[in-house]
Formats: sequence, structure tokens, C-alpha cells
Amino acid sequence: MASEFDLIARHFTRPARRARLGVGDDCALLEVTPGHELAISTDMLVADTHFFPDTDPRRLGHKTLAVNLSDIAAMGARPTSAVLSLALPAADEAWIAAFAAGFFALADEHGVELVGGDTTRTSRTLTLNVTILGEVLAGQAVRRSGARVGDDIWVSGTLGDAALGLAALKKEVTLPAAEHDYCVSRLEMPTPRVALGLALRGVARSMLDVSDGLAGDLAHIAHASHVAAQVDADVLPLSPALRGVARELALRCALTGGDDYELCFTAAADARAQVEAAGRAAGVAVTRIGAILPAAADAPAVGFVDSAGHALVQQYGGYDHFGA
Amino acid sequence: MASEFDLIARHFTRPARRARLGVGDDCALLEVTPGHELAISTDMLVADTHFFPDTDPRRLGHKTLAVNLSDIAAMGARPTSAVLSLALPAADEAWIAAFAAGFFALADEHGVELVGGDTTRTSRTLTLNVTILGEVLAGQAVRRSGARVGDDIWVSGTLGDAALGLAALKKEVTLPAAEHDYCVSRLEMPTPRVALGLALRGVARSMLDVSDGLAGDLAHIAHASHVAAQVDADVLPLSPALRGVARELALRCALTGGDDYELCFTAAADARAQVEAAGRAAGVAVTRIGAILPAAADAPAVGFVDSAGHALVQQYGGYDHFGA
Repeated sequence: MASEFDLIARHFTRPARRARLGVGDDCALLEVTPGHELAISTDMLVADTHFFPDTDPRRLGHKTLAVNLSDIAAMGARPTSAVLSLALPAADEAWIAAFAAGFFALADEHGVELVGGDTTRTSRTLTLNVTILGEVLAGQAVRRSGARVGDDIWVSGTLGDAALGLAALKKEVTLPAAEHDYCVSRLEMPTPRVALGLALRGVARSMLDVSDGLAGDLAHIAHASHVAAQVDADVLPLSPALRGVARELALRCALTGGDDYELCFTAAADARAQVEAAGRAAGVAVTRIGAILPAAADAPAVGFVDSAGHALVQQYGGYDHFGA
Repeated sequence: MASEFDLIARHFTRPARRARLGVGDDCALLEVTPGHELAISTDMLVADTHFFPDTDPRRLGHKTLAVNLSDIAAMGARPTSAVLSLALPAADEAWIAAFAAGFFALADEHGVELVGGDTTRTSRTLTLNVTILGEVLAGQAVRRSGARVGDDIWVSGTLGDAALGLAALKKEVTLPAAEHDYCVSRLEMPTPRVALGLALRGVARSMLDVSDGLAGDLAHIAHASHVAAQVDADVLPLSPALRGVARELALRCALTGGDDYELCFTAAADARAQVEAAGRAAGVAVTRIGAILPAAADAPAVGFVDSAGHALVQQYGGYDHFGA
């Protein structure tokens, strides 16, 4: 059996490009562009909790990096480097090679360099952790706390596809083959909206990525910005797959489903043309779904109405790993 | 039961100090001191592989950060920030509080700020991952590749205590109570040699931390520097606990035991006074244990001799997570 060092060297070590020192020492050494702040985020993916253990390893490699890139995108930052930790139940070289291929394909697409990592054999759970670094011009990062009353609320792409894909994999719903494949692909191969995040600097006032469901994530913006959010449930961007299922299921997927990795952001009402230009420049649809209102003690931070303005009775909460 | 967000907010969120933006957004935002390079390393700790699941959580919090600080120390860098991922089998608040206390006690000692993280409830294995950041003046980091023929080989502190502590916990050996507690404490509460690493900038030519056993780790220096290393096994720094057990066991612990987190480094023979001054300044013993020789095709990268110069027959290899 190949040793840990051999496997890592074979599949994860590449010559340092931008990094002053890459994989192979106690630390990697990086330069940060003068005048820029460093953005950093970390995400852990655990088998059975975040993915099925038999997930195609190439897709898993993609997703492990994608969910981290999504956090960089949500700040309007440019990703630069990542470190990767793996706890592997078995040193299966074919699995490692496919995982690395998926990881690096996405890394290369975004100019991200893998500069370090840690690998452990475990008899237990496959666990993956990426820490990602990015850069943003000092003061230009888009935070969750910048939403103002009167802002439009926007979202990129379509919502709920990943949740419907998960329901299909769990056989809770049966979809036509094309819709099944589409939704599962959205679950397993999410597209981080890096170009859109960059294009929205100076346009969006607040932003985050939708990872735990729009309802819960939008509440984070509302709380951080001390405002409330009202969403028109009838204008939520839904894919044909979502529009093909019952409205209640589609809404539940779109509002409380996780793993969308779309950007949700707010912008001034007079910036609509700029937002739409940013979407065109990034090649991704952007949809205006609501408005920021004053916070009110007797109203939820995030409310949903239909196009007639009637409040939806159902309360949609975000996914909470420790809740309920 | 408290929600994930509540637990994290309660125990891991502190106001940002140096960071431009700390815990609570998609990314943290950091400034890097002009003229400095960023050092980054990541380490994952998995229950049953790296620690016993019933390890005191305060000690585990300490160790989770300590093993990462040790990598920063081994570059001669100054630690600044960390992100922490946890996969927890249960949201036990008492456990989380104790873990956080141990983590922050060590973080505060080194001026390290926790700027982000990720928490997952899992039904499976307790898994911890830290990514640590540090800074070092551009060009001053001490790499593994700088050893030159004629260099002295040095090591800080004492070797093998953690390995003997592990053997004691596994009931493979029985130690007197004081030695048992000392060795287990060295295993569970390692001391990262950050001050020594900083003091050795410009003095040490190559350096790493001893995490997988001196023999294997020193081979990394030898390979990276294209040299060989010869160690006098009779001058290895051993604690009274190690000196109290059979020589063969003591040597095995000192040469192949993991989890020492001491610094192993090389320096020019005319820098001995400077090395000793660095040790005094950092308050840690430094011991000269051997010399760097030319690499030879017919000799191992790391050889051990006794004080009479006779080669030790036994071959000591480093720990390899996937080997054997």
C-alpha cells in the first residue's frame, strides 16, 4: 500500500505558482497584495451529514472546494489559496485521484492554489475540511450588516434545486429523469458565484451565500443590519424542475432547503440597472425578490407574502445543525 | 437544546481585536503587516486516531491549537489568527465550554485571534480542524530545505515523553504516578515552541517540529536539503521519566514516538552560542544531538550512533498514517 506521503505527493502536490512556498513544509508562505485585506473562511464536510458516503469522489472534490469558494464570493473577494484536510476511512488511491481531479478542476477554474493540507487514515467517518483564502481591496468587502431600509433584495440563479435533488436521492420524491439529474447535479456540483460577487462590489450593500436556506440566511442579513426583510414568494426564481412539483414542496425547497450556494444580496433601489449589469457580466441570472423594511418588534425578521401582498402563514426557518 | 448558532455565539465568539471583521460573516477579514509573508498550516485531529474520545475537553482544546501553533513556530513565524471546525457527536454544552476554555487560554497566551469556524453535529466521530495563520518578515522564514553539510543538529526540550504517556494510557507500561502524570500531560498538553522559533530566525538554517517522531521528521530535513543526518543517540535529551525506563523503550519513544512538538533544527557550527542564547531567551533547553553529513546513496538519510560512534542496528522510521 502506498504511504500517506506518497499518496499526497502524487495527487495533491503541485509546484507552487503564486505561493512563496507551497505544500511540503510546516507552513506554506503567501504574499498578500498590498492594499488588500485577507478574507478567510473554513467549511467541514462530514459523510452522512453533508453528503452520502458513496458520492462520486470527483463531484465531492468539486463540492468541498465549491462551498468554500461560495463564502469568498459572498464577500466580493477574489479567491487565492486553500488548504485541505482529509480523514479517510481507507487509502483508496482511485478515490483519492478522482477527488483530487474534481477539486483541482474547480481550483484551476478560479485560479486557486492548494498550498497545504493534512491527511489522516481513520477507521471512522470520511471528513473533509477546507480553509480558503481570498483578497479584497481594503474596505470593499460586502458584509451582512450593510442592508438599509428601502433596499431591494436579490438572489442569483435559482433556489431549491439542491434540496429537491436531496429529496429525490432519499426517494422522498420521484422526478422525471432529466429533472432528477439536474437537481442532483445542483446538489453535488454547486456553482460558486465568484464572478458575480466580484461584480457586485460597490453595488451590493449586504450579501451572503445561501447555504442553509433562504429564509434562515436572509434572517442573518436582517439581524446583522437591524432591519426586516419581506420576500414575495411568487417571484422566487425556480427552475423548471421546481416548477414541475407541487407549489408547497417547491416553496419549502426554495425557502428552507440548504446547499443552494446562490448569492443573496441587497442593493439600493436606484442600483437596479447596475445589479442587472453585474449579473450579465457574470453570466448568471439575478432576480429581485423583495425589499428591506424597518425592523419591528412584533413582526418576524423575514416575512413572506404572495404577489397579492397576503402574508404566507407558514413560517420558514433556516436549517440549524443542532436545532430540533 | 441550544441551537448551533447559540452555542457558537456563547463560547466561541469574541469581539474582533486585530481582525477587521471576526466571527459571524461569510469570511473574516484580516490585515497582513506590510513587508510580511503569511504563513498558513492546517491540522485535523480525529477521535480514536489522534486522541481518546474521553480526553479532558480543556486539554483537547489546548492541544488542537497547540499542534497548529507548533507548525507556525517551526517556520520562525508569529501566530496571529485561527479558524476552527468541529464535528461534534453531541452538542454537550459543558464539553464545548471546557474545550473553548482550553483553546482560548492558549490562544490568549500567544495573542492568537479565533476569527471563524464551522460546527456540525454528527452521529459519528468527533473531529477537529484548525487552520492557523502567522506572519514572518518576507524572506526570513526557516524552511526544511536549508540544512548544509557541517551544520549541527539541535532539538528543543525532551523527546519521547508523549509516546511514553500514550503507552501508559494504553497500559503497555506502568509508570510511577508522578512520571505517569508528567508524560500524559506532555501528550495531552504539548507546549508549542513559538518563542524559540522566533528567536531562531537568522540562526537556524533549517527547522521543523517533531510531530511524527524524530527519526522520520529529521529525514524530511535531510531529503529537502539533499543531505544526511547523523544523530548521537546517547545525547538525546530525555526527561527523568524516560531515563527511568529501559533504554530500548526510551530510545523507541524518543526516536519514533509522535506528538513531541519540539523543534528540530540545524545551525552552523559557529552559531552554537547564538543557539544557546535563543534557548535561554525562550526559556527552553536546546540540545545538540548530531551533525549534517553529505548524502550518500548507500547510507540512510538519518543514521543513529552511540557515543562511541558505533551505528545502532535498529532502523527507526517515522510514523506514517497510511503505512504498514
